[in-house]
Amino acid sequence: MEKRILGLDPGLAILGFGVITCKQSPSKIQDTTVDMVDFGVISTSSDAEMGQRLCTLFDDLHTLIQELQPDLVAIEKLFFYRMSSTILVAQARGVLMLVLGQHRLPYLEFTPAQIKQALTGYGNADKSDVQAAVARELNLETIPKPDDAADALAVALTASFQM
Amino acid sequence: MEKRILGLDPGLAILGFGVITCKQSPSKIQDTTVDMVDFGVISTSSDAEMGQRLCTLFDDLHTLIQELQPDLVAIEKLFFYRMSSTILVAQARGVLMLVLGQHRLPYLEFTPAQIKQALTGYGNADKSDVQAAVARELNLETIPKPDDAADALAVALTASFQM
Repeated sequence: MEKRILGLDPGLAILGFGVITCKQSPSKIQDTTVDMVDFGVISTSSDAEMGQRLCTLFDDLHTLIQELQPDLVAIEKLFFYRMSSTILVAQARGVLMLVLGQHRLPYLEFTPAQIKQALTGYGNADKSDVQAAVARELNLETIPKPDDAADALAVALTASFQM
Repeated sequence: MEKRILGLDPGLAILGFGVITCKQSPSKIQDTTVDMVDFGVISTSSDAEMGQRLCTLFDDLHTLIQELQPDLVAIEKLFFYRMSSTILVAQARGVLMLVLGQHRLPYLEFTPAQIKQALTGYGNADKSDVQAAVARELNLETIPKPDDAADALAVALTASFQM
């Protein structure tokens, strides 16, 4: 059975996405193969008005989901790092959750610590360790760029490990 | 010249709205008449999934704007009162800003202190003083209920005072 997982790293200026397939061998329950399908970012310009930036996110997310046809979505949970930017990220995240709702897509949420733990075995691993683990798990020769896309693949992988 | 102002008090469980008209006499620049058109709330059930709640907000906001045809929108600015609920309100606010963007509606934002100052002359006025001022300014016999609708009318009035 193959499942297509879309990982999302929410943001207003840059929203990272990464898609993997997760295939479970019918003979061995523990044997799961993951493969990278696509990754990238949706970006909105800080020169544009907030409403127009959210329109871009909304339209591009709909297009992305229609093209990628995920079975499951994995999202990084939002924490308060910096006060001012958190509201902007949360507003963008609201549009993202709306689009998932409109497509009636199931989703899982993971904290940054859960993602680090799943990929490296350490809840307080460095960003570079997580990125190296993403490349290793997906048999990629280079680390996916930009960071937002690598983070999106990391959350998709975290979801695949739970399956 | 008459302008129709839609005031919004953002929230996920309850989003308050209030619509007023603001008429400026052509003879006297200072002479502005405000009248109440409608007020109420859009509510979403906490039993529903986040995505479905945001879908309800999105659909109901579109319907509201199509029915009320505002010229300008006034929104209460978001502050950090309680950490956990702020993210939920910000996500709902993201959907609200998206809908305003889709209708290409101009909007103004006011802090709670600016609204209190505009309606009562005091930036730290009580909620009841603000509600009494809303009823007085709009010649209403009773204070609009629920509070979220009264708050929405208060922010619409704040915008009208700037015109």
